[in-house]
Amino acid sequence: MPRPREFDPDTVLDQAMRRFWERGYRATSIEDLVKATGVKPGSIYSAFPGGKHALFVKSLERYSKLVVPQKLGELEAPGASVAEVRGYFDGLVRDLLRPEGRQGCLLVNTAIEKAAEDDEAAAVVRGHLARLERCMTHALQNAVRRREVRASLDAGGSAKLLVATCQGLMVVGKANPDGAVLRAIVDNAFLALA
Amino acid sequence: MPRPREFDPDTVLDQAMRRFWERGYRATSIEDLVKATGVKPGSIYSAFPGGKHALFVKSLERYSKLVVPQKLGELEAPGASVAEVRGYFDGLVRDLLRPEGRQGCLLVNTAIEKAAEDDEAAAVVRGHLARLERCMTHALQNAVRRREVRASLDAGGSAKLLVATCQGLMVVGKANPDGAVLRAIVDNAFLALA
Repeated sequence: MPRPREFDPDTVLDQAMRRFWERGYRATSIEDLVKATGVKPGSIYSAFPGGKHALFVKSLERYSKLVVPQKLGELEAPGASVAEVRGYFDGLVRDLLRPEGRQGCLLVNTAIEKAAEDDEAAAVVRGHLARLERCMTHALQNAVRRREVRASLDAGGSAKLLVATCQGLMVVGKANPDGAVLRAIVDNAFLALA
Repeated sequence: MPRPREFDPDTVLDQAMRRFWERGYRATSIEDLVKATGVKPGSIYSAFPGGKHALFVKSLERYSKLVVPQKLGELEAPGASVAEVRGYFDGLVRDLLRPEGRQGCLLVNTAIEKAAEDDEAAAVVRGHLARLERCMTHALQNAVRRREVRASLDAGGSAKLLVATCQGLMVVGKANPDGAVLRAIVDNAFLALA
């Protein structure tokens, strides 16, 4: 009979996710994770074979499942249109202007730190970018139908550009959390749809 | 009489810059820098009072002075116009598709890893973003005058958006180095100027 676990793997994952989100992958050691989670190294390895990297990939998946839907909000609704795309961008700007929002998005941080050398992490980031592009394409198609944007708008191409724009907004906002600059970026992105 | 230095500080800075570019700030230890530069810790501290962080900030400044001008190229010329802005974006895409280009830009990496908690690093990143915005504003003003873009274009606002777009291109390109996606982003950014 296996010995019962003395910790909840989801709680451990949440704590690991927070640590990776604050510090990144490379600068987080197994010792940091042991400290953050209060779980012994042996127990971490037995719950997450593959150790630190397995915990990291599972943290990215958990972030996609639990944190991202809160950020996307109404943008994932079937009836979403240009107002919901705008609402998503406005939410990003609000987050970047709050001190506690400045750790940014775990998936953007991971794209920059790890994606070029880590296929598993890159796959989770690509899944996120594809999800964002799907929502935005769908919302822009609704907007074309409802004549809220120009009739000639290429919803798919514009969605790709908007996905890149919101990633760029996060880079700019981390270095320069100036509301006027961030709002000018968003205003100009939406001017291009009119 | 001071003892002559047995190493060249610029060579040490170049080696440190490369290390920070590849690994980031937090994951680079003084031991790594000692290994990368071949210079003893005591000599590093005596040449760069402030140790690792001082070396980091000086590496960012050196990157701005030596690497950035190569990337900006003709975009910094007084006669630059829409073709030079496009050339800069095309260069970013080319770099992102080369395996050795995937470590990205040290300043974007720093914006994501450190800018929110490190005023000195953030100031160097902000200086870079402002320089990019200045070049792009100037080029778009030339483009309006030469009727290469629409007469109603707000050069300053569009430049802010293009700066964010190229930062976003680097995030997307690190996770998804797919030429068709990256070129679609650039094409759509330029469609908005026409």
